[in-house]
Amino acid sequence: MRIPLEREPGRAEGPVYRQIAAHIRTEVEGERLAPGSRLPPIRELAAELGVHRDTVALAYESLAEEGVVESAVGRGTFVRGGRDGDVAHGPPALSALVERLLDFERARPRFGSAEDAVPMHALVPDPALYPADAFRRVLNRVLADGGAELLRYGGPQGHQGLRAVLAGRLRRASTRVEADELVLCHGASQGISLALRLFTEPGDVVAVEDPTYNNALAATLGLGLRTAPVPMRDDGLDLAALERTLERPEVKLLYTIPTFHNPMGTTTSLAHRRRLLAIAERCGKPVIEDAFESDLRFDGRGVPTLAALDRSGHVIHLYSFSKSLFPGARVGAILARGRLVDGLLALKQATDLSDSIPLQAALAAFVDGGHYDRHLGRLRKTLRARRDAVLASLEVEMPRGTTWTTPQGGFQVWVALPEGIDTSDLLADAVGAGVLFAPGSQFHHDGRSSRALRLSIALADEAALRRGVAALARVVRARMGDAPRPERVHV
Amino acid sequence: MRIPLEREPGRAEGPVYRQIAAHIRTEVEGERLAPGSRLPPIRELAAELGVHRDTVALAYESLAEEGVVESAVGRGTFVRGGRDGDVAHGPPALSALVERLLDFERARPRFGSAEDAVPMHALVPDPALYPADAFRRVLNRVLADGGAELLRYGGPQGHQGLRAVLAGRLRRASTRVEADELVLCHGASQGISLALRLFTEPGDVVAVEDPTYNNALAATLGLGLRTAPVPMRDDGLDLAALERTLERPEVKLLYTIPTFHNPMGTTTSLAHRRRLLAIAERCGKPVIEDAFESDLRFDGRGVPTLAALDRSGHVIHLYSFSKSLFPGARVGAILARGRLVDGLLALKQATDLSDSIPLQAALAAFVDGGHYDRHLGRLRKTLRARRDAVLASLEVEMPRGTTWTTPQGGFQVWVALPEGIDTSDLLADAVGAGVLFAPGSQFHHDGRSSRALRLSIALADEAALRRGVAALARVVRARMGDAPRPERVHV
Repeated sequence: MRIPLEREPGRAEGPVYRQIAAHIRTEVEGERLAPGSRLPPIRELAAELGVHRDTVALAYESLAEEGVVESAVGRGTFVRGGRDGDVAHGPPALSALVERLLDFERARPRFGSAEDAVPMHALVPDPALYPADAFRRVLNRVLADGGAELLRYGGPQGHQGLRAVLAGRLRRASTRVEADELVLCHGASQGISLALRLFTEPGDVVAVEDPTYNNALAATLGLGLRTAPVPMRDDGLDLAALERTLERPEVKLLYTIPTFHNPMGTTTSLAHRRRLLAIAERCGKPVIEDAFESDLRFDGRGVPTLAALDRSGHVIHLYSFSKSLFPGARVGAILARGRLVDGLLALKQATDLSDSIPLQAALAAFVDGGHYDRHLGRLRKTLRARRDAVLASLEVEMPRGTTWTTPQGGFQVWVALPEGIDTSDLLADAVGAGVLFAPGSQFHHDGRSSRALRLSIALADEAALRRGVAALARVVRARMGDAPRPERVHV
Repeated sequence: MRIPLEREPGRAEGPVYRQIAAHIRTEVEGERLAPGSRLPPIRELAAELGVHRDTVALAYESLAEEGVVESAVGRGTFVRGGRDGDVAHGPPALSALVERLLDFERARPRFGSAEDAVPMHALVPDPALYPADAFRRVLNRVLADGGAELLRYGGPQGHQGLRAVLAGRLRRASTRVEADELVLCHGASQGISLALRLFTEPGDVVAVEDPTYNNALAATLGLGLRTAPVPMRDDGLDLAALERTLERPEVKLLYTIPTFHNPMGTTTSLAHRRRLLAIAERCGKPVIEDAFESDLRFDGRGVPTLAALDRSGHVIHLYSFSKSLFPGARVGAILARGRLVDGLLALKQATDLSDSIPLQAALAAFVDGGHYDRHLGRLRKTLRARRDAVLASLEVEMPRGTTWTTPQGGFQVWVALPEGIDTSDLLADAVGAGVLFAPGSQFHHDGRSSRALRLSIALADEAALRRGVAALARVVRARMGDAPRPERVHV
């Protein structure tokens, strides 16, 4: 919910809570907020608007007194019923599954009112680093050469040339793979959806890392799947807990990010990977290996992927250009074996027939012409300098009791603040102080509060990253200095 | 299954059935066909290879005698079990839902061995008509102007400029719509998936036309939905049957193609649309209106879309550039109202985050610059001449008892042959005679045999279309002259 707020007392139309209430009242009266629809949870709206939770609570209370909304214990605050009861002529209801997905989406922090803040919240690569012009020229040449034939339906497997180029790269990284074992897709994100659907029926359970990538949680929710969280340690998944989880018959697969974990930034050892694979094989459960940042190693030696170690066809490996080049081509790839490829093709066909071939053909030529590797060389250097800047600033700025990971690649550093701080709560303060981060709660399947947060080095340069960490340290110290405030109770 | 066949007796390595058996044996020995996997049904493999069903049956029988495969009554023919029983180390099993989807896909006719035949089977627009060069120039300019910003994540709703352009076009066609009521997607095909998911949970039932678009049937199957078929009449859905179906509580929505129906080519009247909408509203069930060929009217007056007549927000309208321009941009749009837009955005985000913005931005400029309308003018003229050629040929060539529809737009003509002919059976003969068509069975939810077939004018020019119809007439007459042959029984 975007609510324009005027915070300067001289120009404002009343206190902030009244501005919020007035905006919501207007939305309800204008029927843009339908009867029965749920208002954002107080915590989330407060974070989004950069105001204290009490301010939002006050706004909701005054709306409830007016009869515009009503609260239901444990469920939230809802717009009160409409004027007529003729439900058959109202708009059709969304499925309960979509309603749950909307609730999940609504809980994401939004950063609308913070344009000047240092953007350390998102894993969106920096447009200043995209080789946009080189890509444009290659695309133009490919289209000039290929003409109309490139604009037909491409078939669900995607451009053969790009699959061959990718297979070659994967083989050089010691993963045995042929071009026909790759299915191109719409970023690794579509790869997650398709791979989940390959092995599950709605109602099934999938094992996920806790914490894990929030859009993978959204994908499971949207498919009607439940999640079985397995705790993450500093060196990767707790393997004893993983084994207990995968032994449960209703758990159908594991989704894991062994390299440059999201949100933790950690990479598992070869020994850990071997043990994980042995467990999965023994339980007969497939493993979705999300390798979305695998081309972004800037430090240390590469560890063989699960797909490279897999001898039994249990691993589905997801590759993406979205982080290492740019997201706008929407090209990722799924590596799978044998009949799994047939299943993926049938699902892709039933979902959207095929992807756009010109972009895939252009990527093939772009990689083949050496442009991609030249870009990777520059990008890795930049990211290494950025990571060093963030780690150095954390060392200098953060209060005692703060810990963080040291990623060897990718964008994300996972920071655990001293005990007692809820990073969702802290976000509004941080936005005000000029830095954005991703609070840890959004990476937990149950959205529980967390003293951890994810910092991203994707979008900001070194100077900005230093400013961002300094701002973060200021709000943490301020929060630690606060006397504990009693929670107001809202029903 | 692609099996290279040598049909010239002098060069062949034995009769065709032995070539088929040898190929399958090699696949099993090379472990490309895994133990337990199901061979294609006899009818489908025969159609795919352009051979008689007896030939395939003979091949399967000889493989069964060798112990390579085994048949299970009513279930099909399967590769016999592997050498070791250690199932835990075999590749992971696909979900039952994906297995059903693979069965469905396997039943599609394949046309691999028929390169010289007139292609009247597919709704793929003719690449000879694509304005590929004009589009390339616009895309190149848009990327040069927009640069790296166009290559970021686009957000789940898609390019604002293209949404504004499309909303303007829809308004001129009398559908009241704002740009923020459109969600861009990956062709109308992805639109079908997303719209189905908006209102259903797995296990729910969706009302579909019988016959209907086969990929819509695949989409429902892939989502774990069941279908309630409603009979199509010459003037559209049987509305009494529709009402009985939509009254069932487990039926959650209707999927319909009122304009240039696929596969029938028919368009419903304004009165029929009004009655259909009134039924849907009374039952409180949303309607997915697939308008995938709506820009391809070349004859008669346009009828307002269901979306234009909808006053209660029950209609989800799907638009596509895939047939009217080319499929390769993979751009379609979903028109929805109010909270349905929120639901679609959450689903799109959970499925693949966003589409590729450069292609959408280029399409916006292409339409805005008048290129699209100029292309449509040429295309409609061409399609009208092609339709006239097909209808004239049908009149001259086909035996008495054949009937067909007269489309006012789009690519498809629906032909019903005289009683007693199964068009799935006829396909192998037709391939041999030099024409491809889509047999009616593939448009029925249950794949039942049909004496109807769909002819497409999308890909072949007038002379080829006349040859194609003449070839079709020849095989129909030959079949009608045949004495009825006793079916061989295969268990």
